Amino acid sequence: MYFASDNAGPMHPAVARAMIAADTGFQPSYGSDTIMDGVRAQIRDLFEAPQAAVYLVATGTAANALALATLAQPWQTVFCTPLAHINVDECNAPEFYTGGAKLSLVGGGDKMSADELRARIESYPKGDVHSAQRGPVQITQVTEMGRLYTLQELRALTGVAREYGLPSFMDGARFANALVALDCTPAEMTWKAGIDALSLGGTKNGCAGVEAVIFFDPVHAWEFELRRKRGAHLFSKHRYLSAQMQGYLADGTWLEAARAANSNAARLATGLRNVPELEFVEQPQANMIFATLPRHAHQRLKAAGAVYGLWGDLEGAADERLMMRLVCDWSITHETIDDFLALAKG
Amino acid sequence: MYFASDNAGPMHPAVARAMIAADTGFQPSYGSDTIMDGVRAQIRDLFEAPQAAVYLVATGTAANALALATLAQPWQTVFCTPLAHINVDECNAPEFYTGGAKLSLVGGGDKMSADELRARIESYPKGDVHSAQRGPVQITQVTEMGRLYTLQELRALTGVAREYGLPSFMDGARFANALVALDCTPAEMTWKAGIDALSLGGTKNGCAGVEAVIFFDPVHAWEFELRRKRGAHLFSKHRYLSAQMQGYLADGTWLEAARAANSNAARLATGLRNVPELEFVEQPQANMIFATLPRHAHQRLKAAGAVYGLWGDLEGAADERLMMRLVCDWSITHETIDDFLALAKG
Amino acid sequence: MYFASDNAGPMHPAVARAMIAADTGFQPSYGSDTIMDGVRAQIRDLFEAPQAAVYLVATGTAANALALATLAQPWQTVFCTPLAHINVDECNAPEFYTGGAKLSLVGGGDKMSADELRARIESYPKGDVHSAQRGPVQITQVTEMGRLYTLQELRALTGVAREYGLPSFMDGARFANALVALDCTPAEMTWKAGIDALSLGGTKNGCAGVEAVIFFDPVHAWEFELRRKRGAHLFSKHRYLSAQMQGYLADGTWLEAARAANSNAARLATGLRNVPELEFVEQPQANMIFATLPRHAHQRLKAAGAVYGLWGDLEGAADERLMMRLVCDWSITHETIDDFLALAKG
Amino acid sequence: MYFASDNAGPMHPAVARAMIAADTGFQPSYGSDTIMDGVRAQIRDLFEAPQAAVYLVATGTAANALALATLAQPWQTVFCTPLAHINVDECNAPEFYTGGAKLSLVGGGDKMSADELRARIESYPKGDVHSAQRGPVQITQVTEMGRLYTLQELRALTGVAREYGLPSFMDGARFANALVALDCTPAEMTWKAGIDALSLGGTKNGCAGVEAVIFFDPVHAWEFELRRKRGAHLFSKHRYLSAQMQGYLADGTWLEAARAANSNAARLATGLRNVPELEFVEQPQANMIFATLPRHAHQRLKAAGAVYGLWGDLEGAADERLMMRLVCDWSITHETIDDFLALAKG
Repeated sequence: MYFASDNAGPMHPAVARAMIAADTGFQPSYGSDTIMDGVRAQIRDLFEAPQAAVYLVATGTAANALALATLAQPWQTVFCTPLAHINVDECNAPEFYTGGAKLSLVGGGDKMSADELRARIESYPKGDVHSAQRGPVQITQVTEMGRLYTLQELRALTGVAREYGLPSFMDGARFANALVALDCTPAEMTWKAGIDALSLGGTKNGCAGVEAVIFFDPVHAWEFELRRKRGAHLFSKHRYLSAQMQGYLADGTWLEAARAANSNAARLATGLRNVPELEFVEQPQANMIFATLPRHAHQRLKAAGAVYGLWGDLEGAADERLMMRLVCDWSITHETIDDFLALAKG
Repeated sequence: MYFASDNAGPMHPAVARAMIAADTGFQPSYGSDTIMDGVRAQIRDLFEAPQAAVYLVATGTAANALALATLAQPWQTVFCTPLAHINVDECNAPEFYTGGAKLSLVGGGDKMSADELRARIESYPKGDVHSAQRGPVQITQVTEMGRLYTLQELRALTGVAREYGLPSFMDGARFANALVALDCTPAEMTWKAGIDALSLGGTKNGCAGVEAVIFFDPVHAWEFELRRKRGAHLFSKHRYLSAQMQGYLADGTWLEAARAANSNAARLATGLRNVPELEFVEQPQANMIFATLPRHAHQRLKAAGAVYGLWGDLEGAADERLMMRLVCDWSITHETIDDFLALAKG
Repeated sequence: MYFASDNAGPMHPAVARAMIAADTGFQPSYGSDTIMDGVRAQIRDLFEAPQAAVYLVATGTAANALALATLAQPWQTVFCTPLAHINVDECNAPEFYTGGAKLSLVGGGDKMSADELRARIESYPKGDVHSAQRGPVQITQVTEMGRLYTLQELRALTGVAREYGLPSFMDGARFANALVALDCTPAEMTWKAGIDALSLGGTKNGCAGVEAVIFFDPVHAWEFELRRKRGAHLFSKHRYLSAQMQGYLADGTWLEAARAANSNAARLATGLRNVPELEFVEQPQANMIFATLPRHAHQRLKAAGAVYGLWGDLEGAADERLMMRLVCDWSITHETIDDFLALAKG
Repeated sequence: MYFASDNAGPMHPAVARAMIAADTGFQPSYGSDTIMDGVRAQIRDLFEAPQAAVYLVATGTAANALALATLAQPWQTVFCTPLAHINVDECNAPEFYTGGAKLSLVGGGDKMSADELRARIESYPKGDVHSAQRGPVQITQVTEMGRLYTLQELRALTGVAREYGLPSFMDGARFANALVALDCTPAEMTWKAGIDALSLGGTKNGCAGVEAVIFFDPVHAWEFELRRKRGAHLFSKHRYLSAQMQGYLADGTWLEAARAANSNAARLATGLRNVPELEFVEQPQANMIFATLPRHAHQRLKAAGAVYGLWGDLEGAADERLMMRLVCDWSITHETIDDFLALAKG
């Protein structure tokens, strides 16, 4: 009963097969492999973006930090939410890669509104050499609390960014989960909604370790390549990244896996609604569930072998309410979900 | 006929098998996988270093840059040869990761002598705030031109470093090739020879993308973990790194693959000695061969489909001599070698 | 009628005299001047800290950024208030000098409480490699809104820091103004209150451009010297920094100038209490006054030649209330203050 | 008898007078002082460069490091000589400010030739992501060994840089000394010779601590302002920098001081030619003399109170030859020079 994260399961069989298929003979190194040519074409096609610059790295933090460093100057500030992965979970990687840019927090949680964004941007006076300068807007889709920005919300945020001449970057570690939940096209959720660059997650949705970074305007291409190499993120045997992404995107595997993950979470959520003492923090929209429960209930679940995350657990009484995070990937079985629900219902 | 690099071949079957075997069920992420426990024990055992701190990253540049950043302060200089990978092939990654340390070049090529090292260290006056400060000594084994430091040479270099209180770091991208060529133990070629930290290569010798970083004194352990995460080199699905290293080290696979690579290079070298117009630059000692040949001979080989590197090719006459680099990995076949030799002999 | 800042007035005559006196003959450079020996002894004596490491730089931002970089690791976060100079007015200099450390904001304005500090520290889980690590606590005395921490408040903050093993750094750009307002000794307001390092301002209180950085534990001395040089803040003709600080500290000039500045601000505040439509934001405690007034009143003052800062002025109606910042240095005359008051009272 | 450096003497009286004159009343801070308007116009006029961007900082290292950081990307390499101040005397400040750019050494001493420069640039393959990328060419005039580049030599170097699309930066810490020695105009020695940016020294030639940074193409202006602030090199009481530069440039003071310094060195050199056992290393061309003498002669001079630098002094026999560096500023008297000569001649 492992619900701790979607980074703990195995590769999707289609991804594993692609990796094995690629494991033969010689391939030019450092991204010159023939598989990457196919991946690039595939992504440009899927995103209806024939000019897009497309690169692969192995970790989500690398994708985020390298993309932001390409878009931000060291004296600027990146606008993001307090719960953004780049703020909370990357041990100052964005600050490292940007050469010391600041993160300015917008809103109070996992989502920002256009008005909050505008006010935060305005708080940095234009043309004042003393202040950090205004920089990119970072948007996470699916958010860190499992919620979605609608296309309209995305367009409103990127619209504010454009008013101020700022680029918009989407952390899409769970891009596919959002895409199938919104039932829109990759283009609609990105450049048609004003997104300038995207990290397209593979790792949390059936890959071993691969993320694509996509710049819809290729002006940044060569700089990104240099930053990737300087950051030690250019793989010599790059074919093994290419192959994962190829297997992931071919034949709709990525969407299928995301649908399975979201559907698993929905099954779990439906069951949890009948668990006494448990309350949803937000209505789950993709593959993550945040809910509170009393400490004693948590202790019972844990003792029975359930694994999931707790947010902000501190010392406290047995009846204190704790916040749990439950994440489903594509691979978790209905049996496991149902076992957990049976356990939760006591 | 691919001799361009040892980073272009497939995984060794034992490594691929280990990766497939690991690809099932849930595993805690970010290095907490159970496979890593075995790898750590395995490396400590192989190196007779029960206290060593052991980490995995996916690229050789990451291993080098993160290890050096842990050993060097930003105001120091690293001592290395002009041909060192960290100087020539990493797009300023060491400077980036160290926060701006300098590289000071020792000797004129791929090897440094103890006397050259001492003179270079002395050229930085001690306690002078204006100068870069003396920092780690970086030693590449196998060198970039396919040569070896003997154990005696290694001890002489690290001895000089210790006199000045400086740590010694070994770039062991081709560690196994050196080990089998010198026919010594891992401990003899590292901490017993005065090496403080090592990047132990896997990628060039049968892995898809994994390198171990080993600190023989674990005082640097936690700092390295923070640097690895901040550098975006901590894998969430870390098991796939662990599994590669596990398969690589188990049952002597790493040594077997290195022996095969060296033996392939020896077969190639033996044949090349009979090629008219070709001259060895250095006597090959591991799995790389550097030789010069006239441009017209190179053009004939290239036209016939041979792939290898040229160093410093510039415009020039047809009879100008070019320097070729031929690298053999474990997977290249005797047939390929013999075909190339037949072609070369014309 | 210049109330915009205390960085716009001339040198105190005693400081100017010291500078002129120093301007003769040869003096060893880079801090080896004989005047600096006296300054070091003087500061150690004034602070009852015979072991303290004492350095001079020319700007407050340099003092803050270099001191913080010496105390913080790049993967850590500095705790400060949202209005702290290091957060608002230094164009990411702290992030640059620390190599990418983060600033975490405590409280909602210019002061933090011990409880707020503790909660913010606790929000960074200990030993979690994903998170920024806990780092130094930065305290500004006088605060950016002209308020003071009492000695008790200082001890409470540094007590929390020590519980977590974190160093405490005081930005003392207006240290003397605070000292005379609290009527305590330099030692009481620093190391006796738990402060580990201090930037002791000179520029805003009668110097041309000099700040001292003091580490009460000299363990950081050599590292600071290297950071200062690497940051290009080591003056070759250092005697001109030494001389300013010498003139500033000798014969109580620094305290006299601070008393004059505070007294000027008090005279101004007393008068402003009788200005209709004007309201104090905080009760002034040193040499700065924050007050709101209607836009039309501001426009009248401005038209008459008064110069002061406005915080957060945006488009708005004529009766909208604006926040003004009025700062007095030691040099502003009673006549000027009274002229301004007469004008303000209309 | 102080010949150790030209950074140890007092201010030129004209500079001191300008500083005192500026020390009255209120002046807007951070470079908005009215004196700076005059300085900017003065420099544009002197350099026949009406569009030039002109800034002041307080140290030569700041001028060099900030200018280079503005011209170089972190993944590039700067081309300079082994003896360049930026390589030898700045404790990695260029690496720090550029975010980790490399310095590549050209030639074997204090001067580079166009052919050496071209070969070094060519050694970095164009468009190879593994290599450091080609960056700015840095030229020191007067060189670190007191020699000059002729205008023809300068044009040859910048011509090579332009062929490769690289900017040329001149470290002009002793710009005035070179100018009067070559008897040319500021424009001829800079932009007319292909120089894109210049650090114009004041500190070594009669100022307390001020250097101008000049970009002949103002495209870099705002970026430089941000870098200067972020580097903590923007003075609040900027008027004291402005005033120094104003006094320095007005009425030809800078040229007069440089002529005096060069003339002092020439007097010294003439006398030294008659000192037995002393040999010039290079023929002095500005205000520095490099000569060798036996250790016993040095010991006698030192015992008699002469102060000068020794380059590369190591343990050795009494008759070993040492290299001395003698520097004259404008303020050293003929009496001092003659006393030293009398002493040297024994």
